[in-house]
Parts: sequence; structure tokens; C-alpha cells
Amino acid sequence: MQDTTTSLWETSVGSDPAFLLARANALSLADAAAALASHGLKVRSYSVLALACGDLRPTQRELSEFLRLDPSQVVSLLDDLERRGWVSREPDPRDRRVNVVVATAAGRTACARAREAVEAAQRAHFAVFDDEEFDTFTALLRRLAIGP
Amino acid sequence: MQDTTTSLWETSVGSDPAFLLARANALSLADAAAALASHGLKVRSYSVLALACGDLRPTQRELSEFLRLDPSQVVSLLDDLERRGWVSREPDPRDRRVNVVVATAAGRTACARAREAVEAAQRAHFAVFDDEEFDTFTALLRRLAIGP
Repeated sequence: MQDTTTSLWETSVGSDPAFLLARANALSLADAAAALASHGLKVRSYSVLALACGDLRPTQRELSEFLRLDPSQVVSLLDDLERRGWVSREPDPRDRRVNVVVATAAGRTACARAREAVEAAQRAHFAVFDDEEFDTFTALLRRLAIGP
Repeated sequence: MQDTTTSLWETSVGSDPAFLLARANALSLADAAAALASHGLKVRSYSVLALACGDLRPTQRELSEFLRLDPSQVVSLLDDLERRGWVSREPDPRDRRVNVVVATAAGRTACARAREAVEAAQRAHFAVFDDEEFDTFTALLRRLAIGP
């Protein structure tokens, strides 16, 4: 059995960059999910919380666009984080019909703890690379993620 | 609004390799899904069909491990492809309690057409790279996708 799985890597699918991206992402998500579980977070709620911890005060729409999530998914992630007292919604001074998302002090503490766990999982995941390869890879990946 | 979305790239999340992987994958999946829709395929069913078109005769379990899908998801993708007459399940000569998955002639034709569409979408998605960058990126990505 193991032999066939290994040789699937020699098919055209095994060198298809979109497939490789999907599989690398699946492995990374599994590692991150395991690291975040004991902090009561999922990968998506952690991403929202981490963005709320910056100084940028993103709107729900900006979070949705940046994280490539449906607006309704962002609303439900925010509801959950707000119930725990980790983020709050405040009117945007630029346009008071719109809310921006801000982390509370408790949210910042939770996020910092979760970040340590995620970063440790990530170091393990990217340990296939040496430092130079890691820098090359992430610089190229960032261009791909930003898009045309 | 656009300004904040742009500056989210300057946060720690915007240079987090796991986030970049997830976002690059989301963009790639959206392109592939659009290209495959007119061929009656989704990204997952196309991946299964493409693997069935090789000479490796994978088992359902091997497909599940390789594609990082639940076994039940693989079963439902195969049921759908089999209903359309694109793949068949045959007993594995190595262990007749197990089925292997093989594409039919019609499945091979459908797959070849779909592959053209996917490859065109992919060329557009990876157009942010020149040839050398593309080769460097996919070689590193492949190591990450194979894992430790």
C-alpha cells in the first residue's frame, strides 16, 4: 500500500503546483489546528483574533476580503470571539455605519499564548527547509498570496 | 477601505507563512474551480479522476491519504464519477478484499479536456513568477507538501 502512495508522487498530479499548494496547506492547517485546540481556538478564529490585535482596526468586510472568508463566516467568528470577551465591535470614526474590530486586553493575552503554540507548530512544519530556503520560499509565496 | 486591506499585509499575519499558504491556496482553488465548472467537475473530483487516469490503480485508502480527504469523502467522489461512467472500481489483484480505482476511456477524455482548462488557469495564477522563480518555488513547495 505504502508503495503506491509513494509512487502517486511520480504522477502528473504529484508535481501539479495547485495540488502541492493544497496538500502543503492541509498539512499546515492540521498542525495549526492541533496547536490551537488547547487554546480554545480554531485556525479561522485565531486569524481573526490576530488581525484584531493589530492597530489597524479592520472592518468586517476587510477581514472577509483579506482572509478569503464569506462575510457571514466572519460575523459568526466575531460573535464567538465577542462572547468570550476577546474582541469588541466599535463604530468606525471614518464611517459610523460601519463597525471596526478591536481586541480587548483579555483577547490580546489569549492571542499571545496561542501565537506561541502556532509558531512552535510552524517551526516543525517548515523544518524541511534551511534558513535560506525558508526565506526564499516565503518571499515567493507572499507574492503568490498577494496575487496579480 | 482599500488602504486598510492593503496595510493588513504589513501585520504579522501578512507575513505568517501558514496564512500565506492558506491564502495562495484559496486563490488557486478559486481559479481552478472556475476553470473546472464548465467541465462538470469540482477541484476534488478532478483530483480523484486525474489520479485514476494514471497507471497506478490506487485504492480508496491511498487516494484518501494522498489527497488528505476523509475516506467517506473519497467514497462519495468516486460514487459520483462512477455514475457518470468516468471511473470504475475493480478488485485489487494484490488483495481481492480491496478495490482499486481505474478511469474508463470516457473518463480519460473528460480528464484531458479538464486538464487543459486547469493548466490555463494555473499559468495565469503563477504568472507573478518568471520561469526560474516558478521552478524554485515548486521544488520547495513539493518538499513541504511531501512533509517530514
